[in-house]
Amino acid sequence: MNRYWSKQLDRLDPYTPGEQPQDQQYIKLNTNENPYPPSLAVSNVIRDFEIAQLRRYPDPESAELIAALASYHNLDNPQVFVGNGSDEVLAHAFQAFFRQDDPILFPDISYSFYPVYCKLYEIDYRLPALGEDFCINLLDYASTNGGIIIPNPNAPTGIALSIGAIRELLADNPESVVIIDEAYVDYGAETACQLIAEFPNLLVVQTFSKSRSLAGLRLGCAFAQEPLIEALQRVKNSFNSYPINSLTSAIALASIADEDYFQQCRRQVIESREALSTDLRQLGFEVFPSSSNFVFTRHPERNAEMLYRELKAAGILVRYFKKKRIDNCLRITIGTETECEALVNALQSIL
Amino acid sequence: MNRYWSKQLDRLDPYTPGEQPQDQQYIKLNTNENPYPPSLAVSNVIRDFEIAQLRRYPDPESAELIAALASYHNLDNPQVFVGNGSDEVLAHAFQAFFRQDDPILFPDISYSFYPVYCKLYEIDYRLPALGEDFCINLLDYASTNGGIIIPNPNAPTGIALSIGAIRELLADNPESVVIIDEAYVDYGAETACQLIAEFPNLLVVQTFSKSRSLAGLRLGCAFAQEPLIEALQRVKNSFNSYPINSLTSAIALASIADEDYFQQCRRQVIESREALSTDLRQLGFEVFPSSSNFVFTRHPERNAEMLYRELKAAGILVRYFKKKRIDNCLRITIGTETECEALVNALQSIL
Repeated sequence: MNRYWSKQLDRLDPYTPGEQPQDQQYIKLNTNENPYPPSLAVSNVIRDFEIAQLRRYPDPESAELIAALASYHNLDNPQVFVGNGSDEVLAHAFQAFFRQDDPILFPDISYSFYPVYCKLYEIDYRLPALGEDFCINLLDYASTNGGIIIPNPNAPTGIALSIGAIRELLADNPESVVIIDEAYVDYGAETACQLIAEFPNLLVVQTFSKSRSLAGLRLGCAFAQEPLIEALQRVKNSFNSYPINSLTSAIALASIADEDYFQQCRRQVIESREALSTDLRQLGFEVFPSSSNFVFTRHPERNAEMLYRELKAAGILVRYFKKKRIDNCLRITIGTETECEALVNALQSIL
Repeated sequence: MNRYWSKQLDRLDPYTPGEQPQDQQYIKLNTNENPYPPSLAVSNVIRDFEIAQLRRYPDPESAELIAALASYHNLDNPQVFVGNGSDEVLAHAFQAFFRQDDPILFPDISYSFYPVYCKLYEIDYRLPALGEDFCINLLDYASTNGGIIIPNPNAPTGIALSIGAIRELLADNPESVVIIDEAYVDYGAETACQLIAEFPNLLVVQTFSKSRSLAGLRLGCAFAQEPLIEALQRVKNSFNSYPINSLTSAIALASIADEDYFQQCRRQVIESREALSTDLRQLGFEVFPSSSNFVFTRHPERNAEMLYRELKAAGILVRYFKKKRIDNCLRITIGTETECEALVNALQSIL
């Protein structure tokens, strides 16, 4: 603690992102990036971008991008919010909705940024435990709370809730904002966007980082009825008027327009996930049912941290969490077919 | 106030950026953008950018960009911070340093985002009044405070403090963080970066939006001794691990490398500012001495809001602030020579 720091700073517990080695070529299956490049339409947009335009501030409202997202999801423009990655969108949402008298709820095994936001904004939280099968028990969320956030599919387990379960969660908690964090939704879960008209307490958060192959671009979005979006706008306009840069908007518009390519990449990742899951099971791994672009897995006889280290030595990065209950699991991002084969071969050698 | 909002949300008073009309061609002299395009090196970087790279997250540490900025300013890498525009850098700095028991201080006429941040982070502030000549009186900052922030040159006045005055401010306030917001420093003020080795309480904030013609890119930076930068990192890593996208880093590196073009644009704007100031004085305007890329001016016989409206009708946007003490002033961004001439001609017709 430095004498110049705000008092609260000492209590922060900053997030640790997955390794992003800048100096070595790994087969990188550790941060849930898409193995396929962005749409060719993105290349064209960048090539044709009028550089002189960069001297201007971007549209602070990102109106064109918001209109495209609204149209894509059959929503109205005032039901859409965009931010500098879904991490920024989530940060604003925690500040906008979760500073309540009662603690908020999220699963004990979930996206590890949530408790970090809670410390940043001084929000109390409780952590209902997932079952032994890593499934969410809805009854745990039926108590008084200041809000709920659940990734669907959950991370790092990859397990999805049905849209019926989410509807039940929303109906059971009419006084709380319920955030459904859909970073991985395009790989096998159903989006809760279809429930927005029905539930004023629902906020859906999505990202361009995974299924749109644009993690390097930093673009996230949120969908909800207008009063919740207005809250996010109030925070955003008290923080940074222009979070989305001009190139980002242009690239995102091109990505949204190329639906065929989006569907093709999505399907390919799902196919590879199923093939990899089969291969891992044949190697003796337990593989949890994944609706995302990664698998969560453990070996009954092998220590996960050791496997992580041996894979790294073999040039393959996967994600290992040194955290109670999951410290014997690995989260493995779905790569190209070649990358998945290399992983299976490396594991075969190690085992 | 919606029942789902955090209680604090009602008290926010979001910032209103200058108009960014998306649909009509104005001569845009209202948001202090650079009249010249970014360096040609930026075009080359964008043209050669490997699109497939966008599927990866950017380096969360922005190490290459930070090293280039450190080298440019003769600082060490751990003395540099980058963010998604200097507005984000400032927001993090308010949270990291200014949540103190005593109120912070900034001039009553200054960047209008500062009180917005204070409301967002629940920070008390006092507003020492500028003199009648819109100059800062250092004696006003000699009292107990929780921190100080001053733009140098000040906005929207354009008036700069000498480096000697800033040194005095820092020496008088050894227990407070003093932020010098240098958004406009390249147009005639001296950077306080040269004082960083001497003062552990100094944070210097800069932006790529003005002198580097990259407002559309959203990149800001901060310079200080390591403990202050560490504080910003703690906040950033509790908010968004990857604020700087891959294209932004590549473009910024290209801009930093083209020093000749940077100096050339800078000089051209300064020349045009001096010429415009002379022209405005000949039209009867009072023009405050500017060290920035805009002039702050008023006419003894003409209402500023009316002038703003008549200029807008003539296709020229300038900035008018409906705010006590300055509601009879206009802030006019320096355009190209042609744009400045068009402004002078329009004013001639109006007067």
